Amino acid sequence: MARTTGSEGGKTEAAIRIAAASLIARHGFEAVAMRQLASEVGVQAAALYRYFPNKQDLLFKLMARHMEELLSSWEAKRAQAGLEPASRLADFVEHHIRFHLERRETTHVSNLELRSLSEGQLPVILDLRSRYEAQLRTILQDGMAAGRFTIEDAGLTTMAIIQMITGVIVWYRPQDRLSVDELIARYLIMTLRLVGAAPHH
Amino acid sequence: MARTTGSEGGKTEAAIRIAAASLIARHGFEAVAMRQLASEVGVQAAALYRYFPNKQDLLFKLMARHMEELLSSWEAKRAQAGLEPASRLADFVEHHIRFHLERRETTHVSNLELRSLSEGQLPVILDLRSRYEAQLRTILQDGMAAGRFTIEDAGLTTMAIIQMITGVIVWYRPQDRLSVDELIARYLIMTLRLVGAAPHH
Repeated sequence: MARTTGSEGGKTEAAIRIAAASLIARHGFEAVAMRQLASEVGVQAAALYRYFPNKQDLLFKLMARHMEELLSSWEAKRAQAGLEPASRLADFVEHHIRFHLERRETTHVSNLELRSLSEGQLPVILDLRSRYEAQLRTILQDGMAAGRFTIEDAGLTTMAIIQMITGVIVWYRPQDRLSVDELIARYLIMTLRLVGAAPHH
Repeated sequence: MARTTGSEGGKTEAAIRIAAASLIARHGFEAVAMRQLASEVGVQAAALYRYFPNKQDLLFKLMARHMEELLSSWEAKRAQAGLEPASRLADFVEHHIRFHLERRETTHVSNLELRSLSEGQLPVILDLRSRYEAQLRTILQDGMAAGRFTIEDAGLTTMAIIQMITGVIVWYRPQDRLSVDELIARYLIMTLRLVGAAPHH
């Protein structure tokens, strides 16, 4: 995917993506028209089609970019992470919660609109999701192999943890009684207990 | 909400609800038209309006009924449940997973379309959800008071468990390697470990 952020074209493209994520999160993909999106961004529909040939292509690019950014952001963090399984798991959980809290609307679109992808697009997005899930599953399996985690089923536990920590974006609001740091600290303790690990220090 | 199931009118109303949940789950509430719904059920639009004065009313009734059934179904199960906190928690988790696996489409609508409720409707649905969450929170608090659970934050743990066990409907398919009973057994172990309880016997 070409990244031209910084240029005028890059700014327009980014503005379209932000407005599209917000409109789709509020109304659902099918209910959003390209004309409505152009008016929200303040460009002519023709300008929109220069960046995204059609609505279907726009949805795919939004969802693919979200997953690619999630993967590359985690890979960058992982390179600095500890080797100990509990410490790597804690890094994964913290990264996941921060990344998604900063991208609520795109996360919403990514989770809800798998149903709207075309037959050709869906396997690409599902493959990116599998690659991300494999990152967590490997941490769990390494912890099991090292005798540090008590887990019956690494695949199931991967899904359980991802759904538990992604759920945060549904109800958490920055003005809540807990700060993001406190929120993450409590989810870390729950996650470590869930995998039968001693709390992380 | 009048329940006339069994009568001809009750059957039509039920058919409308089932078709509406399916259409909304696939396309999103805003994209579904009453005319399309009538054609799916095989009735005239006028017949549809006899049961549901408008699309907004239909959405509200679907979501309210889903939560009311969840609450009354759990209350019936709870009456037969054990008193021991770990056993009540296990009953809650098992009931929650079975209830939602049997109602995937309505669950989907209930989770996704809070955004589409009117200002007057939203508090009613949120109140039903709070009442349900309070059922789980009470079990957790009783377990903490009895020294059986290790939980830092009963409110947060309530949300974490509900999101973890509701997430099952997103990925589980009946033809998966695990049966529903095996699936539930594994989620029970994870939930009990998450709250610091010994596995349930």
